[in-house]
Amino acid sequence: MTTTQIKGGTVVTAADRFAADLYIRDGVVIGLGQDLNLHADTVIDATGCLLLPGGVDPHVHLDFPSLSTTTADDSNSGTAAAAQGGTTTIINFAMQQYGEPLPAALQRSVDQAEGQAVIDYGFHVVVRDLGADRIRGIDEIVESGASSIKLFMAYPGELMVDDGTLLIAMERMAAAGGLTMVHAENGSAIDVLARRALAQGHTSPQWHGRTRPTLLEAEAVHRATVLAELVGSPTYFVHISCAEAAAEVAQAKAKGLPIFAETCPHYLTLDNSVYDGDSFEVAKYVMTPPLREPHHQDRLWHSIRRADLDVISTDHCPFCMVGQKDAGRDNFLDIPNGVGGVEHRLLLLFDRGVRAGRISLERLVAITSTNPAKLFGLHPRKGSLMVGADADVVVLDPTGRTRLSVTSSPSRVDYSIYEGWTVGGAIRYVLSRGKVVVDNGVVGDHRGHGRFVARGATATPN
Amino acid sequence: MTTTQIKGGTVVTAADRFAADLYIRDGVVIGLGQDLNLHADTVIDATGCLLLPGGVDPHVHLDFPSLSTTTADDSNSGTAAAAQGGTTTIINFAMQQYGEPLPAALQRSVDQAEGQAVIDYGFHVVVRDLGADRIRGIDEIVESGASSIKLFMAYPGELMVDDGTLLIAMERMAAAGGLTMVHAENGSAIDVLARRALAQGHTSPQWHGRTRPTLLEAEAVHRATVLAELVGSPTYFVHISCAEAAAEVAQAKAKGLPIFAETCPHYLTLDNSVYDGDSFEVAKYVMTPPLREPHHQDRLWHSIRRADLDVISTDHCPFCMVGQKDAGRDNFLDIPNGVGGVEHRLLLLFDRGVRAGRISLERLVAITSTNPAKLFGLHPRKGSLMVGADADVVVLDPTGRTRLSVTSSPSRVDYSIYEGWTVGGAIRYVLSRGKVVVDNGVVGDHRGHGRFVARGATATPN
Amino acid sequence: MTTTQIKGGTVVTAADRFAADLYIRDGVVIGLGQDLNLHADTVIDATGCLLLPGGVDPHVHLDFPSLSTTTADDSNSGTAAAAQGGTTTIINFAMQQYGEPLPAALQRSVDQAEGQAVIDYGFHVVVRDLGADRIRGIDEIVESGASSIKLFMAYPGELMVDDGTLLIAMERMAAAGGLTMVHAENGSAIDVLARRALAQGHTSPQWHGRTRPTLLEAEAVHRATVLAELVGSPTYFVHISCAEAAAEVAQAKAKGLPIFAETCPHYLTLDNSVYDGDSFEVAKYVMTPPLREPHHQDRLWHSIRRADLDVISTDHCPFCMVGQKDAGRDNFLDIPNGVGGVEHRLLLLFDRGVRAGRISLERLVAITSTNPAKLFGLHPRKGSLMVGADADVVVLDPTGRTRLSVTSSPSRVDYSIYEGWTVGGAIRYVLSRGKVVVDNGVVGDHRGHGRFVARGATATPN
Amino acid sequence: MTTTQIKGGTVVTAADRFAADLYIRDGVVIGLGQDLNLHADTVIDATGCLLLPGGVDPHVHLDFPSLSTTTADDSNSGTAAAAQGGTTTIINFAMQQYGEPLPAALQRSVDQAEGQAVIDYGFHVVVRDLGADRIRGIDEIVESGASSIKLFMAYPGELMVDDGTLLIAMERMAAAGGLTMVHAENGSAIDVLARRALAQGHTSPQWHGRTRPTLLEAEAVHRATVLAELVGSPTYFVHISCAEAAAEVAQAKAKGLPIFAETCPHYLTLDNSVYDGDSFEVAKYVMTPPLREPHHQDRLWHSIRRADLDVISTDHCPFCMVGQKDAGRDNFLDIPNGVGGVEHRLLLLFDRGVRAGRISLERLVAITSTNPAKLFGLHPRKGSLMVGADADVVVLDPTGRTRLSVTSSPSRVDYSIYEGWTVGGAIRYVLSRGKVVVDNGVVGDHRGHGRFVARGATATPN
Repeated sequence: MTTTQIKGGTVVTAADRFAADLYIRDGVVIGLGQDLNLHADTVIDATGCLLLPGGVDPHVHLDFPSLSTTTADDSNSGTAAAAQGGTTTIINFAMQQYGEPLPAALQRSVDQAEGQAVIDYGFHVVVRDLGADRIRGIDEIVESGASSIKLFMAYPGELMVDDGTLLIAMERMAAAGGLTMVHAENGSAIDVLARRALAQGHTSPQWHGRTRPTLLEAEAVHRATVLAELVGSPTYFVHISCAEAAAEVAQAKAKGLPIFAETCPHYLTLDNSVYDGDSFEVAKYVMTPPLREPHHQDRLWHSIRRADLDVISTDHCPFCMVGQKDAGRDNFLDIPNGVGGVEHRLLLLFDRGVRAGRISLERLVAITSTNPAKLFGLHPRKGSLMVGADADVVVLDPTGRTRLSVTSSPSRVDYSIYEGWTVGGAIRYVLSRGKVVVDNGVVGDHRGHGRFVARGATATPN
Repeated sequence: MTTTQIKGGTVVTAADRFAADLYIRDGVVIGLGQDLNLHADTVIDATGCLLLPGGVDPHVHLDFPSLSTTTADDSNSGTAAAAQGGTTTIINFAMQQYGEPLPAALQRSVDQAEGQAVIDYGFHVVVRDLGADRIRGIDEIVESGASSIKLFMAYPGELMVDDGTLLIAMERMAAAGGLTMVHAENGSAIDVLARRALAQGHTSPQWHGRTRPTLLEAEAVHRATVLAELVGSPTYFVHISCAEAAAEVAQAKAKGLPIFAETCPHYLTLDNSVYDGDSFEVAKYVMTPPLREPHHQDRLWHSIRRADLDVISTDHCPFCMVGQKDAGRDNFLDIPNGVGGVEHRLLLLFDRGVRAGRISLERLVAITSTNPAKLFGLHPRKGSLMVGADADVVVLDPTGRTRLSVTSSPSRVDYSIYEGWTVGGAIRYVLSRGKVVVDNGVVGDHRGHGRFVARGATATPN
Repeated sequence: MTTTQIKGGTVVTAADRFAADLYIRDGVVIGLGQDLNLHADTVIDATGCLLLPGGVDPHVHLDFPSLSTTTADDSNSGTAAAAQGGTTTIINFAMQQYGEPLPAALQRSVDQAEGQAVIDYGFHVVVRDLGADRIRGIDEIVESGASSIKLFMAYPGELMVDDGTLLIAMERMAAAGGLTMVHAENGSAIDVLARRALAQGHTSPQWHGRTRPTLLEAEAVHRATVLAELVGSPTYFVHISCAEAAAEVAQAKAKGLPIFAETCPHYLTLDNSVYDGDSFEVAKYVMTPPLREPHHQDRLWHSIRRADLDVISTDHCPFCMVGQKDAGRDNFLDIPNGVGGVEHRLLLLFDRGVRAGRISLERLVAITSTNPAKLFGLHPRKGSLMVGADADVVVLDPTGRTRLSVTSSPSRVDYSIYEGWTVGGAIRYVLSRGKVVVDNGVVGDHRGHGRFVARGATATPN
Repeated sequence: MTTTQIKGGTVVTAADRFAADLYIRDGVVIGLGQDLNLHADTVIDATGCLLLPGGVDPHVHLDFPSLSTTTADDSNSGTAAAAQGGTTTIINFAMQQYGEPLPAALQRSVDQAEGQAVIDYGFHVVVRDLGADRIRGIDEIVESGASSIKLFMAYPGELMVDDGTLLIAMERMAAAGGLTMVHAENGSAIDVLARRALAQGHTSPQWHGRTRPTLLEAEAVHRATVLAELVGSPTYFVHISCAEAAAEVAQAKAKGLPIFAETCPHYLTLDNSVYDGDSFEVAKYVMTPPLREPHHQDRLWHSIRRADLDVISTDHCPFCMVGQKDAGRDNFLDIPNGVGGVEHRLLLLFDRGVRAGRISLERLVAITSTNPAKLFGLHPRKGSLMVGADADVVVLDPTGRTRLSVTSSPSRVDYSIYEGWTVGGAIRYVLSRGKVVVDNGVVGDHRGHGRFVARGATATPN
């Protein structure tokens, strides 16, 4: 039995904010209070700091294959980076091969991650093919603690499923109590636009952005909400990037449907002006959906306040410029899509959200921790600092400043889209189940501390 | 120094739910935890019970004049009833007389309530007239802790203000950091409908309901949101009763305006079928807005889940059938408008909301306690069970059952619209600043325990 | 019996366009055809020209009192100007005095116009006061051929009626088969904004525009559509000036309500940049609603195409700069509101609408002639060139050019907001009931040719 | 040179209605007038009757293959039936075979129809496959007078195209000045629902209706409007059957997109109660989309009035119960989809639309004649009775009555969904290019009178 006291901080939940000491025993929160005078083996001084429940990032790609390569981060480097940024639980993806039973795909990823992670983790299963009676696998993976699947409406020939497959998957997942995640873009129409651009000699990475219009993202969101309505399926849209798509989510919620959605920090802090010009440097910003015109940011922030968007994830999916992205030097379709950033979510949002007056601290906790924990079946064990929760804690100094850079990150990618930015706020300590894994901003070597977390049924954030 | 431990319960906040003992010292929460083994002078056994932050009811009429009479409850009986029902803070109304400075109206009500109340209380000031430079009074009342005003768009000749007055009041209140409450119905058009009904010989109380159509409620909500938008005013709509009005609130929120709204338990649990027939018993249900067709209830529940509606208040405004309502036996316009119910909010919503699967326990806490506390400048002192909050606590036994009746209520009104209903759930104890004011469901004699609470600036619920 | 042939032109209706000669007998169209070889006493050569049904302008103020003056045009000069511009029927206003029976107001205006007009005319009655049983007057004026009334939601103390009066008037007019016209602006709120501006020393005419925001126009449209819905009243909104108000009209039409609306040429061709600066010249543009930001124009054109807007009228309400508008040199509230333009409607819309590709010729005929004729009970006698219609014909040379100027206009106002503009298209001839009143662009002296037209029930445009 | 006078009738256009004689020379209208005393070789007495421009039915399947059969009507019987019902121009479909160049498909159908038709006709080309550079065929068919194509979003494996193909086709057609028609249903999702129903043993025809929900029609409309917006394509939705789909069309029009749509008489006059029970008689009503719940009818009528729907076509696609529909006795998927009715459009709409007060006579002309003529490049030659138009005329006796029945129809199908209905109105004569093809309700033998009409660019209805 080991006990820890975090002393002198201000606890923030999704609903409240108050000065209190936090007491931890054997990795679990056992008390909050003032002047309680309880014994603790270890005392961490959090004077002047905020105590936040550890971040839950439900959209992270580690050991993830794309085109002919694999993400630059594996379960070790990726979770180390996450920890550094105040995230104490990630949910990674297990990719079904064509023809493969879903439980097999899950098991393969579980095996691969075993003993690698710094923080706790789970898996969504990427569904590509429900032929034969592979649909039964959905019940089995949910029982194994992977209570969410992801389907793609984009990338024909690679990941895209047809609407019938999506409908069947949604229905079965709803019955199993889990959540269906959807990458919503009209892949068939985008394919036409992209191939035409290439045919016209437009091969540079800026054309990635120019051939994925917002209308085709919003269309796919609309279509999937209709399918979800038909079978009553709780459905979660990943990486909403634009006003039009956010409006579709809002409209579905207004109808009373169990529709949920996330956006990502890059859609809130960067815009499509980075795509100007033909330099291959632009490939750094090749992610999907692409960055949008500046005016979308205001709408996304509003959607966060209004709870049209429930979560902010990072969609961490890093590929190095050298040796990975450069495969697409002559054809933007050959650039692996994705950017890093799992380590910057909390501070970017603290700076651009809370400090800029766009969201409250409570809302920050909701969208980065409590809401994803509820939606993905992790609450109240994760996403909470209340009594009985895992002692996943971030000690954030609101008066500190942090310079974002790839050089100080455990991530193995070779660049950052936030390189050199300085943000208000500094992460002093991060505890994972009571263990200090980040100490004065530095991640220790905690390979294997993180465990697979079996997740339960999805719950709505409010 | 007195200390209390509430032991064995499950604490519910607007975001979390967890088993914990609650520690109170000198009326304030000092700790939450499990197996902390702290000393307490008094131990309350809450095994199997829920611990909720005491209710905040921001819409209660006590000592309130209407037509030629005054509400059946004063600050003593009304707050005793509130306490019995798990409400530990009410906000009552101070009525400006024509020509009267606003601070004078506030002071009159403060004086009248002094030493009467069982639980803590505050006042909104009803604004009827901003002639001369009475607009300055808004700054003064806010400074005195009455950070909200109420204006009526209905009742021409009595309470109704014109749109210009509403606009001026909103603007000044926004600058002062407070909240403007609006009773939204088109009084001028309703007046035409009501007088025509009388002219056609329709004098019975059912005509109250028939002459206040939903369209005229929604119209006024729309109009006030436009005025609020023009001057950037945080605005709160009282007693939203129908789908059309809720849709207007939703539309304003979708535009990003700081618009907030409440509904009341009777709009969620009763419908306009009570108005059928010419019996004068119908006068029991003469409140404004009237009860609506049954289909509105689903939409209101949805609006509560979707956070289009932020609060459920009671609009407790009781008049006895004998000696008050019966003044309108020959003319429905002479029936004082209003019903009681301050004592039934929590259990009605626990039964019809939580137990019926319509809302979560967390949402119940949000709409009856945390949200109104935030909106009306009482949080985190009220509306929270976290460390440092006033120890206003409800111990609710979810397995109990309660029969609602006027006979067991401290309220002085002579009937209840919920008479004889049995609901799931029973309130075991209510603590106000650490003091047990309700013990095993019975309100003790605590006249004068309640204090005037100076309220601060309005804060958004999320 | 006199016969006329208009030869060689292209007839345009609201639905068709075709080459045909037009045959007229005793002021009525008796035939259309090609190579019919019928005898005619007079032959007018229209080779290369368009033959349009004469314009119907349902919003024209002649002999109209405002503040302490009267419009610069009377029934003679105003109708001569109208004729010059291709309008062959106008509907003027008969103003009710407070306390006056409506038929008396109508009769006064009928008497005043007798023997003055160049073209046919009718009257709407402006309703200010329905006290006592003046509501009965509505039936009487409709029977006298004035099947439309107008009420103002603006100008408190002068013209504004309350919502109850508007509701009563709408209901009675609907029963009588007529049309209720509404000037929609929230006068009470505008009054606050205007008086505050003055109090802050802002007296110059630009403040007219700055104190009448689009939101307050749209709000009033919304409110009146709600009242109209309540009593099933066909309702016509005058001078819609902005996107927000047009959206309210569209929404009402989408609900299936019999709501109709007009805009005016100045809202389509000018914008609020004219208000910049403190010069008193700005008073030329003081009309209500004021000119709006440029982006509204696109939406208004779209609304015309989409049939959200049914009519374009001129709201001709001319006041001279010298001796009338200059009364407001020290206080913009003392500037009589209004501008001329009855003579420029057709060519402005032909140039900016048809020639610019925004609307078809058929739509031009619909919105300036056929639709107002139907809505105001004049069709098929007016608004049509088909067999049996009054031979009100415009012979328009689409290849001509016309310079707009006050100097060449019969109007008595001393300036034009279109001064010096050159537009494509020229009006060669205008016939009123078969008589040539405009010959090669020149209006002859036809005082007294115009007759009062008793109008029938309102009909929807499609 | 032959001349005809139709005497004593009332001419109706999309905008006007007036008493006039109609003069025809060599198949073309040369004059309209009263008491013109012109000579005519033939005089047709139309006293008391309405003269309407002959109907244009742009959605008729003749010689059309489906599953393993072909429609019961060919170009002769189908056009004879059309003529009987007052339709003087139909547009039939030319079906592209997979891999076939579009012009070849068109030529095949042109050849097949040669010499068969009673009235004039054209073809849309059904596009199934744009592989290789078959997209170029679009320019060629437009030049050959087939200025419209049709694509299916339903029937996977048979007719369905993917979104990329639809996008490419729309773009090319827009450039060519033609119109893209879309059958909008989500075929992939419907396929899942249908196969599941079969798997559950539901083989009877009622399951056709139950497996094609309105949501999946509306979804497809939405998707196609997005694709159309992306490439600026004028797009025409066939057979809109429900409120949700009509709302999508309305929303697209509100955005200003060139979106057009039709519905069919059966969606306005029949509902899904015909599907109750397991009798195979239900197969009579197996058309796509299926009949809907009764409440949709009101919305569709409103959409017609509001011009959200521009056209009413019949989607005449007849299959006999004996020998065709009965192929699906054991599996509803084997029933050929479609119903007859080309001969009943005008009278059904006159009775249920005009006589029932739902639409005006002018609107009837617009949606059955003038609008389709404009949209499909036939106006002003077709869809008009004005000077210069083809003398395609319907003489309709509004006081007559007609009993609808398959036995009196030239159509070769063996049942009618309107069997035995009696409607107000009777068609006395129908003239096609001046020739009487229907005399006192009877179609003569006019095989070969009808000609292929080369159509021009699409034009908007107003």
